[in-house]
Amino acid sequence: MTRTRLEEDVLSRIRPTPEEVRHIRAISDEIIRYLSEEHNRPSMVVGSVARGTFVRGDRDLDIFMLFPPDLPRDDLAEEGIRIARNVVDHFGGTAVEKYAEHPYLNARIYDLDCDLVPCYHVASAREIKSAVDRTPFHTLYITPRIPPLVDDALLLKQFTKAGGVYGSDHMTEGFSGYLCELLILYYGGFRPLIEAAAAWRPGCLIDPENHRTRSFDEPLVVVDPTDPNRNVAAALSLDRMCEFIELVRAYRAAPSDAFFSCRQPVSFSRNQLIMALEERGTELYLLNFGTPAYVPDTVVPQLRKSLTAIADLLLRNGFHVNRTDCFMGDDVSVLLFELFNETVPPVVRHIGPPVWNGGNAEKFVQKYLDDSPLSGPFIEDGRYVVEIRRPYTKAAELLSSETLLHAALGKHVRKSMMIGWDLKSGEDCWTEDLAVFFANFFERSGPGVRIMRLGEE
Amino acid sequence: MTRTRLEEDVLSRIRPTPEEVRHIRAISDEIIRYLSEEHNRPSMVVGSVARGTFVRGDRDLDIFMLFPPDLPRDDLAEEGIRIARNVVDHFGGTAVEKYAEHPYLNARIYDLDCDLVPCYHVASAREIKSAVDRTPFHTLYITPRIPPLVDDALLLKQFTKAGGVYGSDHMTEGFSGYLCELLILYYGGFRPLIEAAAAWRPGCLIDPENHRTRSFDEPLVVVDPTDPNRNVAAALSLDRMCEFIELVRAYRAAPSDAFFSCRQPVSFSRNQLIMALEERGTELYLLNFGTPAYVPDTVVPQLRKSLTAIADLLLRNGFHVNRTDCFMGDDVSVLLFELFNETVPPVVRHIGPPVWNGGNAEKFVQKYLDDSPLSGPFIEDGRYVVEIRRPYTKAAELLSSETLLHAALGKHVRKSMMIGWDLKSGEDCWTEDLAVFFANFFERSGPGVRIMRLGEE
Repeated sequence: MTRTRLEEDVLSRIRPTPEEVRHIRAISDEIIRYLSEEHNRPSMVVGSVARGTFVRGDRDLDIFMLFPPDLPRDDLAEEGIRIARNVVDHFGGTAVEKYAEHPYLNARIYDLDCDLVPCYHVASAREIKSAVDRTPFHTLYITPRIPPLVDDALLLKQFTKAGGVYGSDHMTEGFSGYLCELLILYYGGFRPLIEAAAAWRPGCLIDPENHRTRSFDEPLVVVDPTDPNRNVAAALSLDRMCEFIELVRAYRAAPSDAFFSCRQPVSFSRNQLIMALEERGTELYLLNFGTPAYVPDTVVPQLRKSLTAIADLLLRNGFHVNRTDCFMGDDVSVLLFELFNETVPPVVRHIGPPVWNGGNAEKFVQKYLDDSPLSGPFIEDGRYVVEIRRPYTKAAELLSSETLLHAALGKHVRKSMMIGWDLKSGEDCWTEDLAVFFANFFERSGPGVRIMRLGEE
Repeated sequence: MTRTRLEEDVLSRIRPTPEEVRHIRAISDEIIRYLSEEHNRPSMVVGSVARGTFVRGDRDLDIFMLFPPDLPRDDLAEEGIRIARNVVDHFGGTAVEKYAEHPYLNARIYDLDCDLVPCYHVASAREIKSAVDRTPFHTLYITPRIPPLVDDALLLKQFTKAGGVYGSDHMTEGFSGYLCELLILYYGGFRPLIEAAAAWRPGCLIDPENHRTRSFDEPLVVVDPTDPNRNVAAALSLDRMCEFIELVRAYRAAPSDAFFSCRQPVSFSRNQLIMALEERGTELYLLNFGTPAYVPDTVVPQLRKSLTAIADLLLRNGFHVNRTDCFMGDDVSVLLFELFNETVPPVVRHIGPPVWNGGNAEKFVQKYLDDSPLSGPFIEDGRYVVEIRRPYTKAAELLSSETLLHAALGKHVRKSMMIGWDLKSGEDCWTEDLAVFFANFFERSGPGVRIMRLGEE
């Protein structure tokens, strides 16, 4: 399938320049050589730089330092960080220590963002001791196969980035670079992938090496060619998969440069928030508290879990939730709730056991004979019902109360909230830091829909 | 099982006096003789008077005039009413014509309420041509069997009357007199019935003649000894059955005269209504319209159907219904709704097809690209969602609108509402006519619970 003029134009914009490639190669070669000569440490470049599949301007260099598998984990971590720090010092860079399964250095060396990661040098991906040990095998698999399809891989990466579905982190839940490359290899190019993905449905199974050893639950399954037990698309959520399907359909129907152009983030002023609330008539509540001192991939799932737990609590208390969202800032994290009602009448019905369930029915009646319910116990559809008083008639009271701490919050979120949280409502939820967050919350649409609207303007 | 002192005391109060029995027998004999001599029309006394199972003061005399089965229906009706009118005239009474499956006369003769009903004289209950033809067979079955248990039957009738579960009409949905008598015969008395009913559950099957020819869906099944195809308890609702179970349990635990004493109806003043609404914090709406010109057994089920249909409509429009009730007055009928909210925000989410359902998904997106929703279409849990504007944001607007006429109302209710209805809310719902109705609505409790509360005072 020949590429369209549009796709060629995009490629001419996103292909790395020869100078850029030479520059990154030169630096990575220097680091590899230094590690070998000064530290006798074998290492390899992995990721898109190694495979030649990086998009112009994405200067992420990943260097993995290989250690023998019999080295204890603590020693791997300690020795890995020690050597990495020496590399950063030698090249006059700066670095922060980060954690995946074990610590690594995220460094700035010259103008590159460079991860220096210690890992075990195992014989095959099935023998890995830590998830990061798998990465070198991905590079070994992709590197010899991708050259004829590098442009196609670049198009897909740019397409998923512009569509907001690129990135396998817990906030995005989208497509990793490795997944993009495997899909391009499997379908034989960008256009055949687009044609195929328009008909994807949850349960879609791709097994390039036809070697899977188990079944997978995730909506898209791409069995890792280097590990039959692993789904490369495990981090892809159903909604990101569906958004990709939407993008693909919209692109087939009306291809345009917009599908490859990352938009400037839209932001909402305080006034725009006021107008949105006026138009929707809903009640907005925001909880904020100190961001737990962990990486986003730990904290974000806990924020989501906390959203669900508090939304359930609100509903059980008669407050109807339309939507929720969360935001993890550097210092402060946010849980946002849009409710249909800010108050609820005191009366609530509590449904008891069936009347013919003798023991329970009598216990229930006795309990509410002693209390004084608003009405009942009476019988409805064969069950006992009482109408009693709600503990909270205002959402703000519930959301300020310690009851929240008994909900199924994420562990680190609970710890942070035990120190305290602020509750804001309505327009007071707005801060400059959340201007983009609110724009995305209120002007929510599928990424393909957004581009179709641009086309109609 | 010997009767308790309490039960003997009750019996001494409810057994008809010998004078009362003689008086009723004298009048019924006169009418039977007159029908035979003047009109050559065989007839019989049916019901509790015939069986000797009537409670003191219940002066309901049922006289069935027997016609040959080959008489056309219209002739039966015409001839039946003609003779009945002559009877009423002869005895100097007054009468109104009523309708069951065919017309009959409800007359006042001396101090008795007397139904004069034409029916077919068939050979067995399985050959009946109209439901009323069955009644004589019931009397033929009960009369020879009940004498040793008449007192027990009286106790059960009084117990169900005082408990509010006596009457097989559509408003009550309770126990008929015939059902009470069959239960007493089956269990061998009032006390054994009480013991057994405490353990009743829905699905309870009683088949005294062990001759049923089909299965029944109703919560209590008592197969008619005179017709294996009929459930004598068909009119008994699950809730009345459960209320009887509650009464029985409460009576076993703490027998008292209250279980046999019909209470004065409690009524609510306008101020009590105001206070109840204040305490509950709910919103009350009342629709009233002309009562359709049909008997309660036709109208009441239609009022109930209309309640359900309008409650569904309210819920679909975002108004949360706590409870509903209806009232059929002579001139005006009422549908009552207690809501948790009187307003709802303009925004509502509309959930569309799954994204992978290509054709429908594209149609949905296209529709809402052209409209301008408040947000979306966006993707949530794999489905398209839009947030649009509600047609009604006030319950009062919806309940005043013609939209109501498109709900699945009862046929005659719709006809009446097409002429028009009034909508009232809050304390304005109160009228003197509804004082008892509102007391029952707000101070709702199981009949056994009510008596237990009396005992605690």
